[in-house]
Amino acid sequence: EQKFNPVDHPHRRYNPLTGQYILVSPHRAKRPWQGADEIPQQAEDKSYDSECFLCPTNTRVSGDKNPDYADTYVFNNDHAALTPDTPDAPGSDNPLFRCESARGLSRVICFSPDHSKTLPELPVGTIRKVIDTWNEQIEELGQEYVWVQAFENKGATMGCSQPHPHGQIWANSFLPNEIARKDENLRAYYQAQGTNLLVDYAKAEMADGSRTVVETEHWIAVVPYWAAWPFETMLMPKAHIRRMNDLTDEQRDDLAVAIKKLTSRYDNLFKCSFPYSMGWHYAPFFKDGDTSTEHWQLHAIFYPPLLRSATVRKFMVGYEMLAESQRDLTAEQAADKLRALSDVHYREQQ
Amino acid sequence: EQKFNPVDHPHRRYNPLTGQYILVSPHRAKRPWQGADEIPQQAEDKSYDSECFLCPTNTRVSGDKNPDYADTYVFNNDHAALTPDTPDAPGSDNPLFRCESARGLSRVICFSPDHSKTLPELPVGTIRKVIDTWNEQIEELGQEYVWVQAFENKGATMGCSQPHPHGQIWANSFLPNEIARKDENLRAYYQAQGTNLLVDYAKAEMADGSRTVVETEHWIAVVPYWAAWPFETMLMPKAHIRRMNDLTDEQRDDLAVAIKKLTSRYDNLFKCSFPYSMGWHYAPFFKDGDTSTEHWQLHAIFYPPLLRSATVRKFMVGYEMLAESQRDLTAEQAADKLRALSDVHYREQQ
Ligand SMILES: O=P(O)(O)O[C@H]1O[C@H](CO)[C@@H](O)[C@H](O)[C@H]1O
Ligand SMILES: O=P(O)(O)O[C@H]1O[C@H](CO)[C@@H](O)[C@H](O)[C@H]1O
Repeated sequence: EQKFNPVDHPHRRYNPLTGQYILVSPHRAKRPWQGADEIPQQAEDKSYDSECFLCPTNTRVSGDKNPDYADTYVFNNDHAALTPDTPDAPGSDNPLFRCESARGLSRVICFSPDHSKTLPELPVGTIRKVIDTWNEQIEELGQEYVWVQAFENKGATMGCSQPHPHGQIWANSFLPNEIARKDENLRAYYQAQGTNLLVDYAKAEMADGSRTVVETEHWIAVVPYWAAWPFETMLMPKAHIRRMNDLTDEQRDDLAVAIKKLTSRYDNLFKCSFPYSMGWHYAPFFKDGDTSTEHWQLHAIFYPPLLRSATVRKFMVGYEMLAESQRDLTAEQAADKLRALSDVHYREQQ
Repeated sequence: EQKFNPVDHPHRRYNPLTGQYILVSPHRAKRPWQGADEIPQQAEDKSYDSECFLCPTNTRVSGDKNPDYADTYVFNNDHAALTPDTPDAPGSDNPLFRCESARGLSRVICFSPDHSKTLPELPVGTIRKVIDTWNEQIEELGQEYVWVQAFENKGATMGCSQPHPHGQIWANSFLPNEIARKDENLRAYYQAQGTNLLVDYAKAEMADGSRTVVETEHWIAVVPYWAAWPFETMLMPKAHIRRMNDLTDEQRDDLAVAIKKLTSRYDNLFKCSFPYSMGWHYAPFFKDGDTSTEHWQLHAIFYPPLLRSATVRKFMVGYEMLAESQRDLTAEQAADKLRALSDVHYREQQ
């Protein structure tokens, strides 16, 4: 009888935030790859591009002209997926044809005037300004909307259509699927255990260490035990923090350091501008019903698609879309690889 | 006061099979695209390729030699994500670190010896043989496994690493996420309404017509009301059929016709070999507990990534990964476009 070993044997891990499983097939990493190659992404080399819609002083598609901004710059998305004044949709009593109207808006945050510097290559002080902008936007829009999703799509592979480093903010009059599901699971854990799931989880990961990628005074980034994407990470405060607004000045400065270290390790992994989608989850701005939020904890999630090199990605297709997410290396193996690298960006080393 | 109009106003539609919402932003289709382009996919031009691992008489990576097969050809995947003899994993009492061992296997189905013919270009009689092979594999593996996922990843964009037309079969000792969730939702509807959700749905779509793409004597393909991918479709029998095995000979022949018509419309949309992931859902082979399956209905789902042309796809990234799936045209608009095309493949027209 063989003994079960998570490095050799296929298994499923449970994600307590989504209630879903991930199929882990660690023995599969050896198969040869003959499929599609990505174009390796490198940072832009000019710090100003006269053709860029996001650079200072340039004119956008809409005809609006960007100011000569010095830090972050926020504007309304010219092609927003949501409108603030959507009329109400008529109700339906057929459970198979249910529809509701959706209100919201969408903004773009340019991280800095520099066309060529993504988060890992920005100075810590500039990343701190991005954090403050995220927080201001979330607080402002949270007055009106129950959910404000701050995120960044980095790299063409992740659907990013503008190379100038930027993120987005989508405000919603509804609780989107992922947030509604997470709210339920966090709440159920809090009710059952009397403690906060993600605070407990951060403690357990600090004690264990095998999935830790970056640890600073106030923050920890791990490849979660239940990661789906090969090098997925979750960045969490060590203290219980419901929303970005609750962070002290010191915790914010330290967050800028943690982001710089984490994204530098990413770029160092395959010596490229590492593509990902990242975003923030935190206590929603509940307007009615049960508005309690003790069960929530602020955290960022990074979903990077690359698997083996700057050109070979993981495809979440067929089996994954129809049945279950599947990964080819364990969370611990992925964390080992990221931890083995320098946390100084390869272009800032000498 | 404006009146709500689903063609102009952002709204959310509810998917009763997953319990999740889709954000529909129909006004957004107009935004310009400056992001990544796909390489337009065309069918291979040779009917035999001496370098192909799947062509008859060739030798695979494993060293095994393919027979000189005449119809479909099934073999065990040389790099399976699952193993049939995985040892049991030890239990864990920490709800944050739950893991279970997974058993299964994975097979490849070559659709025909012809290297250059994808489903839409195969004769109906050959598609019928693919259907029979799916059924045989599912029935055989269902003896041992609770779930057998039959699927096809078509095109490099969908992670397909071998251009020779083929599908895959992954057998599982567990009920994967998507099937477990669908089972719950179908069962709850059956308990509440006393009828079968998908049988009711097919009837409603036949009566309505606005989302119908292909209708044959025994089958209907629609862009579901709750579609997430731009040109997603669901192919359903009109009668109540729990598993492929329950289909009559006539219903199988007619299914081959429906598949040929549907995939030909897909290829005709952007005059390319239309990429997608497709697969079958049907009553699981429950081994214990409540093994009733009246609530199940056989159906195929097609998830194609293209949005506007052979080179511009939809990216399910940032907002979609972190919050909620989002689409840029309504299901009815997508169905209109597919319905406006010929159901004869552009390379078979003269
Ligand atoms: O087995 P293949 O075709 O090499 O691999 C493809 O399909 C699998 C099942 O959907 C995925 O896990 C892989 O990411 C994808 O590249
Ligand atoms: O708004 P962008 O950057 O043009 O668009 C990108 O991000 C959006 C939000 O994740 C997605 O809906 C789009 O598919 C993607 O291309």
